[in-house]
Amino acid sequence: MKLFLIACSVLVSSSLLAQKADTLAKPYQDDAKRIFAAALGTGQAYAMLTDLTTNVGNRVSGSPQAARAVEWAKAEMERLGFDRVRTEPVMVPRWVRGPVEEASVIGDPKLGDVPLTICALGGSIGTPADGIAGEVVEVKSFDELKALGAKAKGKIIFFNRPMDRTKLTTFEAYGGAVGQRGQGAVEAAKAGGVAAIVRSMTMRIDDVPHTGAMNYNDTVPKVPAAALSALDANWLDSLLSARQSVTVRLKLSCQTLPDVESANVVGELRGTEKPDEVIVIGGHLDSWDKGSGAHDDGAGCVHSLEALRLLKELGLRPKRTIRVVLFMNEENGTRGGKAYAAKLREGEHPIAAIESDAGGFTPRGFGVSADSATTARNPSIFEHVARWAYLFEPIEADRIKPGGGGADIGELAKQGAATIGLRVDSHRYFDYHHSTSDTIDKVNERELELGAASVAILSYVLAQEGL
Amino acid sequence: MKLFLIACSVLVSSSLLAQKADTLAKPYQDDAKRIFAAALGTGQAYAMLTDLTTNVGNRVSGSPQAARAVEWAKAEMERLGFDRVRTEPVMVPRWVRGPVEEASVIGDPKLGDVPLTICALGGSIGTPADGIAGEVVEVKSFDELKALGAKAKGKIIFFNRPMDRTKLTTFEAYGGAVGQRGQGAVEAAKAGGVAAIVRSMTMRIDDVPHTGAMNYNDTVPKVPAAALSALDANWLDSLLSARQSVTVRLKLSCQTLPDVESANVVGELRGTEKPDEVIVIGGHLDSWDKGSGAHDDGAGCVHSLEALRLLKELGLRPKRTIRVVLFMNEENGTRGGKAYAAKLREGEHPIAAIESDAGGFTPRGFGVSADSATTARNPSIFEHVARWAYLFEPIEADRIKPGGGGADIGELAKQGAATIGLRVDSHRYFDYHHSTSDTIDKVNERELELGAASVAILSYVLAQEGL
Repeated sequence: MKLFLIACSVLVSSSLLAQKADTLAKPYQDDAKRIFAAALGTGQAYAMLTDLTTNVGNRVSGSPQAARAVEWAKAEMERLGFDRVRTEPVMVPRWVRGPVEEASVIGDPKLGDVPLTICALGGSIGTPADGIAGEVVEVKSFDELKALGAKAKGKIIFFNRPMDRTKLTTFEAYGGAVGQRGQGAVEAAKAGGVAAIVRSMTMRIDDVPHTGAMNYNDTVPKVPAAALSALDANWLDSLLSARQSVTVRLKLSCQTLPDVESANVVGELRGTEKPDEVIVIGGHLDSWDKGSGAHDDGAGCVHSLEALRLLKELGLRPKRTIRVVLFMNEENGTRGGKAYAAKLREGEHPIAAIESDAGGFTPRGFGVSADSATTARNPSIFEHVARWAYLFEPIEADRIKPGGGGADIGELAKQGAATIGLRVDSHRYFDYHHSTSDTIDKVNERELELGAASVAILSYVLAQEGL
Repeated sequence: MKLFLIACSVLVSSSLLAQKADTLAKPYQDDAKRIFAAALGTGQAYAMLTDLTTNVGNRVSGSPQAARAVEWAKAEMERLGFDRVRTEPVMVPRWVRGPVEEASVIGDPKLGDVPLTICALGGSIGTPADGIAGEVVEVKSFDELKALGAKAKGKIIFFNRPMDRTKLTTFEAYGGAVGQRGQGAVEAAKAGGVAAIVRSMTMRIDDVPHTGAMNYNDTVPKVPAAALSALDANWLDSLLSARQSVTVRLKLSCQTLPDVESANVVGELRGTEKPDEVIVIGGHLDSWDKGSGAHDDGAGCVHSLEALRLLKELGLRPKRTIRVVLFMNEENGTRGGKAYAAKLREGEHPIAAIESDAGGFTPRGFGVSADSATTARNPSIFEHVARWAYLFEPIEADRIKPGGGGADIGELAKQGAATIGLRVDSHRYFDYHHSTSDTIDKVNERELELGAASVAILSYVLAQEGL
């Protein structure tokens, strides 16, 4: 494509006059335009994210890097001149991957030993030093596993149901597969299995394993659990079709250490008229320990920091308080979200909370949820958020839909806040999510900045108009 | 982000019932859903684009690779079982970059000689073998150049107006800067300059030069023209601020050889009821000779091929003819587009033409233009296209706007066709455009497939319902 599109830009300019006439009928439209232009023209979100991901790196809860991330965030808020910058302590789990994570098909009659590309799932116990070896049984569902009966005893259970590619958003596809990761170890143990190997939660067929949270419970033994790359999951599936039996040895050195103290990092623009009515905007500061947590959720952190910075830069003083909260420990405990909500804040009313935790991609709109506490306060809370959709039309991010929010802000719904998630284009997210691929080079500066601008605009109109 | 979004997928499922009730009132909704699912589930667009970009590579008009691309496209259409597959010959220019493209700041008092990262603009003449050396003058506009008067004589003119980052789409920003590339050499020559160096048309600050078309005219001498990487454009600007004078030597071995015969590649699904009413869908098969033309415009080619393949796979036989045209020579002459339109096709009526030439990114909708010939035939042609917007709502690609089309299909408007451009998310396009960065790894499979599905759906409803 070359010169052709110049003609289109002329068409766009000629529509500016019509837009001017709309301004009176559509309040905040000029503010929104200034915010978009400032974000794209002189934004700092990308520079902040580059700094966080390269100079702090990944930051799993309880790690030294997570502690550095807390310091980094506090220093950034101070540099940007936010009000009342502070850390709010919270105890977090400390899971450590350790140096060893290996798996191999062993003693194959034709191939001998063949290494598999795996990584431990977050929270998994380790194996004995010489590993756990077992025959592999592959299943696509927990029902299929139950139907195996005694055949699963002593086996390594291979959960290989892929994310459904036909879903129109990747989050739907993730929702349909991630139970294998979260509950695979429990179900494997219930069936008498000795370990769980789970196909990575991605639709990309490559050799990168994707970690993520898994759970244990007290009713069954704990067995180790690892993610297998999609490429090796396909290969292992083929091998199982071609052989009477396949044996795998799994070695993991991961372990859970005692909880350590960490913190949420908080700063705000104090409201000029109703400072005790608060709009929280945030993301989570912790990440997994693969890659550098650029999209998950460095993007959400800098969306929030940049949103407040933009308002300050443009001299937009909110009537109600807009507070950035960078939550600790979303990935494996949500301790930060719970601690923020549990803390007594005398006289304060959280009216809305906006979380960005779907990556730094082109924004498409917002998803809005409300608890009974919220709808008791305002029965048409969704409509009151959705009426601002036109402000996001210039960047085609005006899809404000029911449903959505964020793991860290869910508790605030019980206190009457509308909980709102930034909706972004989802197609690339699980290519990178929880893996070594989640790095700054996967983030486009303009897409990231427009997310920040969107959070700035919505939080500002809610601060001015209430909810 | 972890388990939280499962809740959202449940919400999505519960809305399916409501959608079912809509189906009768909203024709083609089930067809559209089947097309989206087939594209995402078992699509071939990404595999085709991988094949084109790796086994053919880049394919500048008149090159051996362009000839191979014609063979590739014809073979793909035959493999896919399209009707009436053929090539339609067209003479195209042949510009050859040659082995030498170099520039250096020379004889700087502190730095000595410093190489610059440049590439020749497409169509430029070469320099003498030992290059052209001249003092550099920097300008941001043609007016500024004219104001220099005699000071520009004998100089190398450095056009350094960046794309305006504050524009909400990158195409607007491109439209405001690309005149420097297209007309820089002519304006430099008018001012008495000896060469033109143009800041690359990108907003990314990196060391990759971006080529693209430039023009000469017969009223002024031809001077050579090259693109400078954005990083070096910033550096040269700094150096010019710090020095009384800066001299650059430019060496280019590019040249224009005699025209050669090439071809458009054409195949179709023949209409079952009104085969002489034709919907053209297409992209351009040529690319620049940097990178491998993955987004520009390999994506548009496979969008079109895949759109027809999807209709065939799903057994959707169109009443009117849907014809894929892969145009040759969009980048430097549009000879293919002109030749396609000029060819006499007895009894045929082109009712619409859809071009994809903005990359393989997430689709957002379509842009629709109409010539007087089109509106004479149907005064509400825009509304007749826009009424199908709801079919694209499931993927949030339902922004059907006035304006747009494509360089290759413009001539068809004079024959009464609505000319329609696929609109996609624009933010990343100029990071890659016309440079070594435009490679298959920059394309996301799902985003690419949804573009193909969108073209399939719109061309199918127009084939069934007319326009």
